[in-house]
Parts: sequence; structure tokens; C-alpha cells
Amino acid sequence: MEPVYLDNAATTKVDKEVLKAMAPYFDEFYGNASSMHVKGQEAKKAVEKARETIARAINAKLEEIYFTSGGTESNNWALKGAFFENFPKKNHIVTVKTEHDCILNTAKWLEGKGAKVTYLDVDKEGFINIEKLKKAITPKTFLVSVMQANNEIGTIQNLEEIGNICRERKILFHTDAAQSFTKIPLDVKRMNLNLVTINAHKVYGPKGVGALFIREGVKITPLLHGGGHERGQRSGTENVPGIIGFGKAVEISGKTDYKKMSALRDKLIKWIIEKIPDSKLNGPVGDKRLPNNVNITFKGCEGEALGGYLENKNIYVSTGSACMSNTNAQSHVLAAIGLSREEQESSIRFTLGKETTEKNIDYVMKVLSEIIEKMRTAGKIKNG
Amino acid sequence: MEPVYLDNAATTKVDKEVLKAMAPYFDEFYGNASSMHVKGQEAKKAVEKARETIARAINAKLEEIYFTSGGTESNNWALKGAFFENFPKKNHIVTVKTEHDCILNTAKWLEGKGAKVTYLDVDKEGFINIEKLKKAITPKTFLVSVMQANNEIGTIQNLEEIGNICRERKILFHTDAAQSFTKIPLDVKRMNLNLVTINAHKVYGPKGVGALFIREGVKITPLLHGGGHERGQRSGTENVPGIIGFGKAVEISGKTDYKKMSALRDKLIKWIIEKIPDSKLNGPVGDKRLPNNVNITFKGCEGEALGGYLENKNIYVSTGSACMSNTNAQSHVLAAIGLSREEQESSIRFTLGKETTEKNIDYVMKVLSEIIEKMRTAGKIKNG
Repeated sequence: MEPVYLDNAATTKVDKEVLKAMAPYFDEFYGNASSMHVKGQEAKKAVEKARETIARAINAKLEEIYFTSGGTESNNWALKGAFFENFPKKNHIVTVKTEHDCILNTAKWLEGKGAKVTYLDVDKEGFINIEKLKKAITPKTFLVSVMQANNEIGTIQNLEEIGNICRERKILFHTDAAQSFTKIPLDVKRMNLNLVTINAHKVYGPKGVGALFIREGVKITPLLHGGGHERGQRSGTENVPGIIGFGKAVEISGKTDYKKMSALRDKLIKWIIEKIPDSKLNGPVGDKRLPNNVNITFKGCEGEALGGYLENKNIYVSTGSACMSNTNAQSHVLAAIGLSREEQESSIRFTLGKETTEKNIDYVMKVLSEIIEKMRTAGKIKNG
Repeated sequence: MEPVYLDNAATTKVDKEVLKAMAPYFDEFYGNASSMHVKGQEAKKAVEKARETIARAINAKLEEIYFTSGGTESNNWALKGAFFENFPKKNHIVTVKTEHDCILNTAKWLEGKGAKVTYLDVDKEGFINIEKLKKAITPKTFLVSVMQANNEIGTIQNLEEIGNICRERKILFHTDAAQSFTKIPLDVKRMNLNLVTINAHKVYGPKGVGALFIREGVKITPLLHGGGHERGQRSGTENVPGIIGFGKAVEISGKTDYKKMSALRDKLIKWIIEKIPDSKLNGPVGDKRLPNNVNITFKGCEGEALGGYLENKNIYVSTGSACMSNTNAQSHVLAAIGLSREEQESSIRFTLGKETTEKNIDYVMKVLSEIIEKMRTAGKIKNG
């Protein structure tokens, strides 16, 4: 059996077309995009083409896209940049308990610098309550940061509704769209977004490159000061091949069949819930769930062990988010939707990719039923 | 005539061996280095091998190397990280007027946050005065940041001497070694360095990856908060192919013949000074100059025009540093060594690379003598 990689929320394989587009920029058109000579200008031209492709994908203008080193930098920049621009006049941020660690830990750091942060609760499916968001806003609020879709449980928030509130209250609205970008519609105008985080390696592009959309007229403090690259907002020699790869990945993203992916997702969910006793889906069903996300608690099965058994069968999944694997097996997201510590540790995330086939899913179902039965039998004997 | 690329201080062509090493990490070993399964662990293993190679190159320990997105991030992190860790107990930084913009503009930003910064003068060759450095230090000084070698004029500072002072006074010592790394010895122990900035794209590695050396026991605040990558100090999914490329670039750097490069540098300098009237070398001669750097003021020749004429002959050079080309033609470095505005604008930087041949240099000399004569004749007529 070929490896079945179901950890596409952690990172994706770089697409062959993306690699082909990047290749000449390493050793043929290798100039510094800020150099005035043609070696620099041919690099710059390609960078601007990628910028245009990415801008168009979210209904933004070319000059509203600022390249960064990835989602973590973009999220740090959005929050810290908005904070340093607005503090001490305004000091309050509204965000959500289920945000990615790079939002939560940045917010936490800013609390040490004088920020007040409201961390909104979510319901059992991971949705925020819009009324509670409204109530959280104070005259001191300068930023609302709500991710478009959750990286662990796939919950898609209603950005348009939040955007309307932020427009009315004249508050900056940021979304971390690292997991959702290219998978579901993202329209900075319709959703009234001021700041948007996107990155390449979740969409079959290279690691080490991302972008922050900053709406024209919105001012935030740079995170990286220096030579004045990216129109003075983000210094550092442009990662030309990375940016070209990011552009190509976005350009070809329309070819991915997300309807088919959602159908495979639903097939796996339905089968697990019906066939595996004491299994529970985390996050919502249907259109409000990312098309590639399946997150299941298998009661009584230790998640890491289950991940290991699946790996023995050439199936690669994640316990929690890859971004956290280094630190601990628990999940602040699963905790926020009400799972006990034991349930958190019995949960597995399967994230499908564009190469995932029905045959892969059938194989996963077959392997899962065998493993879970074995684990539970062993558990019963041990605990019995 | 083949293109003669003499802008290697702006960026370098990625080495074929580096590309070959990186290639499988895009679409074969493409896992997230923080994932627990084998797809992640094979990436992680390669990252750690690269870390070891880089650590060894500067006489550091494996765990003292933190990967970043490049020199600008590393410099921002060193200064801001040390500031936020030490402020308000200590608030004073000592640096130099000829530092790269990412040091100067970071320092300037920190001044707005409560830092006091001393910008040391340099002499006509770009060297700092050690006695003045000693005098600048106050009980409030927490950081001395002096670049190892200047990006525009190649001046190599005496880090060992500065390191001794910092050790005595118990002050953090940071160097931006982006231009000097692998070209001249860099030993964090001998030079008593606490923080060192290095990057890949100046040493035939890819753009978008660098590192910060942080001496064991030295605490600085993270610049990128998040999922706890890089032992909690620098979050963000590891740029695996970039890091592998960086490691390979450092691994093969010993093959470059810098004695030969210095000889070619000196041949070009000697010829220009002898044969082109009213030409002047900026920066020192001999061992205290980077082996690849030639910076010349051609009196009465507008630098950008000269660059353009050279480009017409397939020779690529830089006016000032590429990092500043976007902003203006003047140079704070040339100003600091006493050049007038007119002289700054009549200056050209040639930076040799490992592929530069004697034939290339002979060709440059031939072209230069023709162009300068034409430009000066035209200038005399126009101004006459």
C-alpha cells in the first residue's frame, strides 16, 4: 500500500507545477528583487506577478499584499503591528479561545505590554456567539481577530457577519485564513477585512513564505524593520523562489475539486460514527466545516498510540495540530469545545489532500476498524 | 560575453549541490518537522543535521542555532529580543553608524519605545574606535551590536577586541555576520559573541532562510510567538528545504578559494586606482577587507548611469547596497566615512563570487576604461 498522507492541515506536498515554476529562480533568475539591474528586475517582475495572482484570489489590490515568511509571522505582525500603532490610545483586542497558538501566544505577550485581551468562548461545534462578540467590544477595542476556519476541527466562522460589526464600530478586523485559504471563499471586500493572514505550505506551495493582506489606508507598525522592502512595511530580501511558488500554488488552486473532497470527508465521518462504537465527531458537519477536515474522539483509545498504529499501516494523521506536537498532546481547541482531558488525548485529526482518493479512504476505514477493536480489547483486558 | 555578475553581496546564485540537497524536501520528504509521524521525523532529522553543520561552522553548539527567515529577521530579533528582555532595567544599546539598515531602523524604532542608542562614528576606512566604544558604555547598556564586515565597503571590525570589552562589562555582544559568514573566520567562543546573525542567500544558499545564534544561557524575548518551534524561541513551521539548503551551502563553503578571490579583488582595485584618474577606493585594503568587496568612487561619474552602462556590457554591479536601491541612491555608509553626497552618488560596488574568473575581471577592466572615459568626456562637454 502507498502511503496515505492525511495530515494536509500540518503541511502539504509541493505541487509539481509549483516546483517547476520556482526552479529557475534559484540559479537562473537569482537576482535580488531590490537590485536595479536586470538580474534584479526580472526577479521583481515575477514577484509582482505572484502578488497580483494572490491579490486577485481574495479580491484585494496588488499593493495590499505584503509577503512574509509564513502564517506565524503574518499573525504576529497583524496583532503586534496593530497594537504598537494604536497603543496607548486603544489597548483592547477581541479574539477567540480556539485560535492558533501564534495568535494566542502573541496576544498573551501583548498583555504583558499593556494590552487587554478578550478571549471569546465557542459553542460545542466551535462557533463564536456573535452577540457575545458585540458585547465584548469596548471604546478601547482596536482589533477583532477571528480565524476563518479552525485548524483542528475545521469550524468555519461567519466572517461577513463579524466584518459588518467591525465596520459599524470602526474596529480593525483580522482573520487568520492559513487553513481556509483557497479551500473556501475569502473576499476581503465582502467580509470587510482589514488584515488577512495566508500562507503557501498549506496550499501545495513551499514552506517559509506567506503574506499579510493590509487594506489600503490601514496603518500597522512593521514587525521587521530594515531596508524598506515591501513598500517599507516588511524588510528583508524577498524570498523570490518561495513567492513565485506561492503565486503558482494559488494560480492552480482552482483545479482542486473540493466538492469531491467534502464527499470523501463525509464518507469517512459517516462510516466512523456509524461503525465505530463510542466515536464522536468534533466540529460541525456540512458546509460550515473545512472540506478536508475530520476530527474524531475515539473513546478509550489513546490518540498517540492510535496514530502510531495507523502509521504502521502507512497512514499519516495528527493528534491535535502539528504546530503543537512539540509541546504537548492536549488541545486548547478541544478543551474549548468541552472535551475532557481524556477525550482530548483520544482524538485524531485526519486532513485530506487533493491527492486523497476514495481507495485511500476505504483503506483507512478498513485499518481503523481493526485497530480500534484491538486497542479497545487490549484496554479492557488491561483495565479489567 | 557571458554575464559577469558582480553583485554577490546583494545575493548569490544557489549552488547546484545546494539545490540537489533541497530538492527531495519539497515533494518527497515534505512532512512538517513538528509532526510526530515518520513524514515529520525524517524532515526533522534533516533539519537537525543542517543545524549541526551550521553550529560547527561558528564553533557553537547545536542547540544555540535558531532558524529564521533571514538576516533581517535575525537582526530584528537580536535587538528587539534583547531590548524587551532587559527594558526598563537597562535601556542602552551601542551600535555603529555604518550598520545595515535593519539594525539602524530597528534601533530607531526601539528609541520610540524607550531605548537610548549610541551610534558610533567610524574612521575614513570604516573602522570603529575601540576607546570610543568603551566610553560609550554606561551602566544602562545591555547590548553592543557591531557588524563583522560592512556590506558596502567590506571593512572587517575586530570582534575579538570588542568581545573582550563586552565580557568584562557583562554586556551582550551581537554581530551581524550576514556578509562575512563563511568568508572570514567567525568563532563565537573566541570572539565572546552572545548573538550572531547569519543567512543563506549570501553564501550560495536559498533566499528566505537565516539563523540567529543565541549563546546558551542568554535569554531574549521571541520575535515570533506561536506553536513553540525552535525550542520555544522562534515559532513558525520550519522551512525544511530552505534549512537543508542552508546547511549544504555551509557544508561546501570551505571549497571556495578566498585567497584567489582576494587576489582578483586586489587586481581590480590596483588597476582602477592606477589607470582611472580621480578614482578612489572606499574601505580598507588587505586582510581587513572582505575578500569579495571592491567599492570605488569615480569622481564625476554618476553611479547609477555607470551601473547602467556596465549592464549594457553584461556586467552587473550595485550602487550602494541592494537593500537600499529601492529607497535612494545615497549611502549612509559612504556618508559615515566622509564622502560628500556627490561622491556617494559616484560610487560603485563590485562584489565578486566564487564563479568570478580572472577573465571576468580583465573584461571589467577593459569595459570600465572605455565607459569612464566616455562619461567624463560627455560630462566635460555638457558642463564646459
